[in-house]
Amino acid sequence: MELSSVNKNQKVTVEDAFWSNYKQLVAEQVIPYQWKALNDQLPDTAPSHAIENFRIVAGEAAGDYYGTVFQDSDVAKWLETVAYSLRSFPDPELEEAADEVISLMGRAQAEDGYLNTYYMLVEPDHRWTNLRDNHELYCAGHLIEAAVAYYETTGKYVFLDIMEEYVDLIRRTFGKEAGKLQGYPGHPEIELALLRLFDATGKREHLELAAYFIEQRGQEPHYFDMEKERRHSLDAPPTWNDQNTNFGLGYAYMQAHLPVRQQEEAVGHSVRAMYLYAAMAYLARKTDDAELQAVCDVLWDDVTNRKMYITAGLGSAVNGEAFTDAYDLPNDSMYCETCASVGLVFWAKQMLLLSPDRKYSDVLERAIYNGTISGMDLDGKRFFYVNPLEVNAYQAGRKDQEHVKQGRQKWFACACCPPNLARLIASIENHAYTQTEDTLYTHLYIAGSIQTKIGEVPVKITQNHQYPWYAGITVTVEGEGEFKLAFRIPGWCEGAAASINGKAVGISDLEKGYLVLERMWAKDDQIALSFPMPVMRIYSNPKIGMNQGQVALQRGPVVYCLEEVDNGNRLAGLRLPRESEITAAFEEDVLNGVVILEADGLRAEESEVLYQSHLPAMESVKLRAIPYYAWCNRKAGEMRIWIYET
Amino acid sequence: MELSSVNKNQKVTVEDAFWSNYKQLVAEQVIPYQWKALNDQLPDTAPSHAIENFRIVAGEAAGDYYGTVFQDSDVAKWLETVAYSLRSFPDPELEEAADEVISLMGRAQAEDGYLNTYYMLVEPDHRWTNLRDNHELYCAGHLIEAAVAYYETTGKYVFLDIMEEYVDLIRRTFGKEAGKLQGYPGHPEIELALLRLFDATGKREHLELAAYFIEQRGQEPHYFDMEKERRHSLDAPPTWNDQNTNFGLGYAYMQAHLPVRQQEEAVGHSVRAMYLYAAMAYLARKTDDAELQAVCDVLWDDVTNRKMYITAGLGSAVNGEAFTDAYDLPNDSMYCETCASVGLVFWAKQMLLLSPDRKYSDVLERAIYNGTISGMDLDGKRFFYVNPLEVNAYQAGRKDQEHVKQGRQKWFACACCPPNLARLIASIENHAYTQTEDTLYTHLYIAGSIQTKIGEVPVKITQNHQYPWYAGITVTVEGEGEFKLAFRIPGWCEGAAASINGKAVGISDLEKGYLVLERMWAKDDQIALSFPMPVMRIYSNPKIGMNQGQVALQRGPVVYCLEEVDNGNRLAGLRLPRESEITAAFEEDVLNGVVILEADGLRAEESEVLYQSHLPAMESVKLRAIPYYAWCNRKAGEMRIWIYET
Repeated sequence: MELSSVNKNQKVTVEDAFWSNYKQLVAEQVIPYQWKALNDQLPDTAPSHAIENFRIVAGEAAGDYYGTVFQDSDVAKWLETVAYSLRSFPDPELEEAADEVISLMGRAQAEDGYLNTYYMLVEPDHRWTNLRDNHELYCAGHLIEAAVAYYETTGKYVFLDIMEEYVDLIRRTFGKEAGKLQGYPGHPEIELALLRLFDATGKREHLELAAYFIEQRGQEPHYFDMEKERRHSLDAPPTWNDQNTNFGLGYAYMQAHLPVRQQEEAVGHSVRAMYLYAAMAYLARKTDDAELQAVCDVLWDDVTNRKMYITAGLGSAVNGEAFTDAYDLPNDSMYCETCASVGLVFWAKQMLLLSPDRKYSDVLERAIYNGTISGMDLDGKRFFYVNPLEVNAYQAGRKDQEHVKQGRQKWFACACCPPNLARLIASIENHAYTQTEDTLYTHLYIAGSIQTKIGEVPVKITQNHQYPWYAGITVTVEGEGEFKLAFRIPGWCEGAAASINGKAVGISDLEKGYLVLERMWAKDDQIALSFPMPVMRIYSNPKIGMNQGQVALQRGPVVYCLEEVDNGNRLAGLRLPRESEITAAFEEDVLNGVVILEADGLRAEESEVLYQSHLPAMESVKLRAIPYYAWCNRKAGEMRIWIYET
Repeated sequence: MELSSVNKNQKVTVEDAFWSNYKQLVAEQVIPYQWKALNDQLPDTAPSHAIENFRIVAGEAAGDYYGTVFQDSDVAKWLETVAYSLRSFPDPELEEAADEVISLMGRAQAEDGYLNTYYMLVEPDHRWTNLRDNHELYCAGHLIEAAVAYYETTGKYVFLDIMEEYVDLIRRTFGKEAGKLQGYPGHPEIELALLRLFDATGKREHLELAAYFIEQRGQEPHYFDMEKERRHSLDAPPTWNDQNTNFGLGYAYMQAHLPVRQQEEAVGHSVRAMYLYAAMAYLARKTDDAELQAVCDVLWDDVTNRKMYITAGLGSAVNGEAFTDAYDLPNDSMYCETCASVGLVFWAKQMLLLSPDRKYSDVLERAIYNGTISGMDLDGKRFFYVNPLEVNAYQAGRKDQEHVKQGRQKWFACACCPPNLARLIASIENHAYTQTEDTLYTHLYIAGSIQTKIGEVPVKITQNHQYPWYAGITVTVEGEGEFKLAFRIPGWCEGAAASINGKAVGISDLEKGYLVLERMWAKDDQIALSFPMPVMRIYSNPKIGMNQGQVALQRGPVVYCLEEVDNGNRLAGLRLPRESEITAAFEEDVLNGVVILEADGLRAEESEVLYQSHLPAMESVKLRAIPYYAWCNRKAGEMRIWIYET
């Protein structure tokens, strides 16, 4: 596989059975598939019209705007995915298609730099009148991210120039200064995009605009109140939110209930929260702001220790697609949007950059092997928006759970998740390593290599293994000199061992979960890491009422589930005895090759009555569990992660 | 306590510690309290305005209509309660107040007999234009039921005359005949009311109108489609349902998706279903219609063996306050409206009248000791509309569970439940006995007596016991001759025993769950029934996913629950070991005197993390369970019926 460049100083390659397959899927299936979607060439699916909207604005097609107010962002995420994918899979034809879309954007851009097809076509006189609901700055953010990624891969400036022109307009429009709007987006995204733009260009004004948007959020008098007041005099179409009033959640719905530095609990729409928190951590790092970093840590603790599913899914309620109270984690009616877990990865990466700590990378790993990739089938053609932990046939007819689909969909009218997952997979290697001045941190075990400099020493390390199925990891070090290599000892792992050139290294003295190896490295030093992967029975904190009496199975970072296709229906009637031995075996022909778990279990005998005064009789059955991310790839049906234990 | 007359042939008295107390509460607290509510004399509660609406119609007050479209029914249910209560608690002052309300209704009644304050004040030109949503016939039904009850208690014809005049108008308006509207109510109720009116007056036209409304339901072309079409030309205010379109449930929402004889599954709004099914069973009996009876039995099976909570609560979803699929019985987000369980009692009674069978009376008993009376506090001053089986602190903030109140309310803007429960309690003795030609059936063990004739033989039997806490039951028989006495052997009871005059009687040969004693009875024969009441551990059918791994406690007919005030918070973290002995003891000073259950249990140790690879440590605790119906009478907090078992 080709060399790919994560940033100016690092080159990372992926030679990993698991992730190379996913990256190839994105390159060969998802990108072309989404390109068709964006161009309305998929039969029997909700049309996108996203490219056509740009054509109409550019005067190159006739017709009306169609789509959500944030339709532009689908094009942006596709371009961003293309940018990452081109690093590993150069494809001149694809690059040309991308260049053409970028050129179209340039032609669609207004004289003054403005670029949003919804407003340009539907409400040309109402720019910046509904930041609360209409995703204008959100779309700008995704376009900026795409432009940065495209520039970093291709070295081409066109897209970056378009976006910097747009950002200049945004900077002239928003800010604390008199005569500017003191607004900020209802849906965060531009904040982290501007920070990336700052990193790519070195222009401090981009950082300052990001800081403005972050700090202005939730200040009083409340901008969204004033904006709403002003909107009364406009002839603007009503939005979903005019009636829903933030789903009864107030401005907490968009994390604008308080200035961010006063926020102590994760609230509201989970995706918005992730994007905001990621930007806050990014800003804290760029400005060396310990106070803001501390806020991020309080929020991290709240999310990951009180409001996160075992899959790294986020969002307990469909109402507002939002967090609810601590420990409220229903498995069947939750939201767990793919985008939220993707956002959690972005945030985790930013936290790692602030301060390497296993508490961040463990969650990052949990997300990438579970609640993110569950959002796509193994063919890259169907997608989950909502990722349930449990699907029961008897709930299929519930009107209040219509958001929980029992099978993946081809596309969505609101198509945020598929391209979001695609851009994560295409750039998965960006999350494997971080560096400090004297240390190279390995957070993820993704086979392949990184070339970088530690201090002035050129270093290359190469991981070799079959993670996540087996974790005998060999790391070859190329680089001569004194520097530190830090390896994450996964939080799930008991009995890890390490050696250098065959000589055991103690691992009792970890630094925040990392084994830090400092020495005068010589050519071809070899590190061996061993992370035993017995099947783990995972139990919930008793505070999570929904999971009591139940056990989840995890092996390495992979969470398992039972599916109807393997275990029959009525999965809630199955029992896993505490003493049952659970076997694990790699099955090459199943689900692209996965480790399957099997155990002797029981099935409670059903009856004709609802309630009875004796325990149901139990029948012996063989339980078969597959990795959660791969569920619903053979046959639709029931699924559950948490299994009743006896 | 005074003699009370259930119907012309039976006189039933209640001398029962449990029910006399409730009946007294209704007479002394609930009726005066609800009278104040109806007259807007309760501070800090939603106003009712129900009496004032009648005054305005009668031209005796000025002002506008206020309340739901079915506000009149609150007055009706109050009058019906008063009628029953006066049988046990004569109260000339109360009777005078009732007479005055009835007189006011007479003055409000239109020349042509029409009587509905909403339409008379708000939409005078739109009578009968929205049967689907506006409860016009429903209100008429409740007024008819009240009029029948008031006539039966007092012998006064005034109310009955008012309603018969109204019914005449309804009969001239609705029917299959040309020139009539072929409509029927969106909310069933008038059907069973008309059957009661038939029973009270002997006028067959009332039965025929009831039969018309029942049989016309769900016929094609669909009346509600045509009515909606016609309504387009009216300037009528939009209703909740114009937007909600039957909560996405179609006409199944009001059981009008099919003609009733084709219905095989309980669907839609649970209260509507109960009232309809009760009327269908009533009609089947009055017309000796075996086909319709069979339909009722299929529906009974579906409700009680697939869709009923252990409390006899009905309605698994707030959306449509409705049934969902079989075995979908969530304990925390359900509806379980008090009115639905009250309606289940009415239906069960009608099924028993059709065919005495324990499968009906067991459910009837389950309802009266659990999911109905849980709707009122022990002071008779606060009410639950929705009766959860589980309340968790961590769910209190959920917007989608705002219907689940964590404490009883003083009154409701939609105040159907409190007066519905009051009329049930005031007439509880109506459900204790039924008769066939040669047999007197005792369905409920409510201490007191019944005087009746079996064939030509005058018979009085007197029950003496302390049910539901102890079930050593003595029945004294007064009546000389040959007749059959049938006693329900409760379905929950194992090891029942019976004797006559001290001589054991075999109970192996039950007839549909009834011990039928046939002999030449002599004066002062005494029957002893013994129903052992060990604490039972109740398990769910494995098809109910939500209750797996959990146990409910029941003793006699009473279902128990854990409350936070006794057991601390985080009740889901408690465990009841399978081998723990559960003790039962009557505690006179607790909750008006109840049997309390105690057992050695465990509490899982909480942790700071969400998920861990070892079982939480367990601490020994004493578990204390109280009768479910009495929860939330001491301190608001968590509650749960289903307890995790180890």
